[in-house]
Amino acid sequence: MPRRKIIGVMGGGSVSDEVAGMAEELGRLIAEANLVLLTGGRPAGVMDAASRGARSAGGLVVGVLPGADPDDSTEHLDIAIATNLADARNLVNILSSDVVVACPGAAGTMNEVALAVKNERPLVLLGWDPGPVVAEAERAGRVARAATAREAMEKVQTFLR
Amino acid sequence: MPRRKIIGVMGGGSVSDEVAGMAEELGRLIAEANLVLLTGGRPAGVMDAASRGARSAGGLVVGVLPGADPDDSTEHLDIAIATNLADARNLVNILSSDVVVACPGAAGTMNEVALAVKNERPLVLLGWDPGPVVAEAERAGRVARAATAREAMEKVQTFLR
Amino acid sequence: MPRRKIIGVMGGGSVSDEVAGMAEELGRLIAEANLVLLTGGRPAGVMDAASRGARSAGGLVVGVLPGADPDDSTEHLDIAIATNLADARNLVNILSSDVVVACPGAAGTMNEVALAVKNERPLVLLGWDPGPVVAEAERAGRVARAATAREAMEKVQTFLR
Amino acid sequence: MPRRKIIGVMGGGSVSDEVAGMAEELGRLIAEANLVLLTGGRPAGVMDAASRGARSAGGLVVGVLPGADPDDSTEHLDIAIATNLADARNLVNILSSDVVVACPGAAGTMNEVALAVKNERPLVLLGWDPGPVVAEAERAGRVARAATAREAMEKVQTFLR
Repeated sequence: MPRRKIIGVMGGGSVSDEVAGMAEELGRLIAEANLVLLTGGRPAGVMDAASRGARSAGGLVVGVLPGADPDDSTEHLDIAIATNLADARNLVNILSSDVVVACPGAAGTMNEVALAVKNERPLVLLGWDPGPVVAEAERAGRVARAATAREAMEKVQTFLR
Repeated sequence: MPRRKIIGVMGGGSVSDEVAGMAEELGRLIAEANLVLLTGGRPAGVMDAASRGARSAGGLVVGVLPGADPDDSTEHLDIAIATNLADARNLVNILSSDVVVACPGAAGTMNEVALAVKNERPLVLLGWDPGPVVAEAERAGRVARAATAREAMEKVQTFLR
Repeated sequence: MPRRKIIGVMGGGSVSDEVAGMAEELGRLIAEANLVLLTGGRPAGVMDAASRGARSAGGLVVGVLPGADPDDSTEHLDIAIATNLADARNLVNILSSDVVVACPGAAGTMNEVALAVKNERPLVLLGWDPGPVVAEAERAGRVARAATAREAMEKVQTFLR
Repeated sequence: MPRRKIIGVMGGGSVSDEVAGMAEELGRLIAEANLVLLTGGRPAGVMDAASRGARSAGGLVVGVLPGADPDDSTEHLDIAIATNLADARNLVNILSSDVVVACPGAAGTMNEVALAVKNERPLVLLGWDPGPVVAEAERAGRVARAATAREAMEKVQTFLR
């Protein structure tokens, strides 16, 4: 019984209802595919929405927190990983993910996109374009683009195969 | 449905058969209590033995790895958290644990004992004495001592209550 | 006698001769202004060139290394900070810099640009445009753009005042 | 002109006047030997005292801080390295030191002693005994013991040769 595959869903802590809805659906699809969801674990934005979606479908949710307290997290998770490493926890998010899905976000999400590129993790861009930072990785086949949660999930499955 | 409680089991990467056996039994008891086991995730010593024990009892096992590759880990885990933070990952081990059990080990384990004391995590010492580093925390009621895996599990349960 | 101001110069580990020349000149100007230069410390690209420039002008150079060995660094530095934190050392680079100058680079540099934005460090972009990640910080007056090393140095001085 | 050798002085944030005096003298001796002093950078205890001593003798002082703000530091330093890595910054302290001197302290200092042992950095124990954690490193010749700052400095010089 090998380790379970982990899908990391990154994105802003403050997002539109539309983006939150997309993240929630993606979380649900990840759980239905029997994959583990990993997020940044805070009770905000994409992290919270994706976690809620995955838990509503009975999935396993891991949150990797910037702070020291496991209880300072979204309520929609099973496993809280507390780091107290501030933004350095983003490296943990990326390296622990078999595939990374990046939803719209701000500088923190861009940080994670750059780390995914640098560490050669497969990356699905859902509903936005982070610009030239992904160009080389995309040419190398490690980046896919999706407009909906369902399409993102198809790209995830392709990368996992 | 709140997050699951995590028991961190620390200890040497190279230990006697007796210590390994104790760690394996402890892992099994953690799983039987429906608690999550967290270890340093490497395929060696206490980490490996405790993980094997927990998985044999159907438990959920998280490994927090020093390296960048989730597959560079014990085979007896469900969730591999890859950090590439070398010894700094020990901080993640301790902060993510609701209770820490320290089995015999070397400098890495002593590092984790010191981090548990400094960050005020409840600490069970199983089968060894790390010396004066724990004195103040012990006076404050945050340290317990056990001679067997079963006794360690009782102390864990007391701390969780 | 207060602490010395630090200028962090970021940029690719593999760059054109033109970019390297620009970084070297910038290092020299930082030293001539009696400011400390901080780079990623590796013997490559912008890090190496800026360090060489600063040392040639008698400046003090700090290198914050991804690895564990202080001697695994450019020879053009005074202070080697060894982290063994891999890409997480980029956070140290940014937080330690009173002003960050980002030269052209790849995903590692983009990571540092994002961290500068997120942590509200003044940022000078020298000879390239990282795209929308800096938009909000630029509106807030925390981003300046320069085409030459000399112009970058003027922007640095403006931020320091 | 190679990089400068760094002596890391570790120890408690809250110590007796006697220990603080010893740390201050040690800082002075490090500066007089034209070596760089590195501490944890906070305005407290051994860090503060050693830094004050080194600066009073015209030495160069580096402080590696747990927080994000370079100005949240002892005033007696030249170079503030801000990490926001909390206790994980202890790894940076140890790896950046060519020789580590550990003064009396609590769990944070014990953490650094353990990291020095694990990462095979030469270690001078000044005025205390951390217990069995150093036994193996001492047998391997990587640990020395001193009762005074002057004696500690002699041990540092021996390790550097």
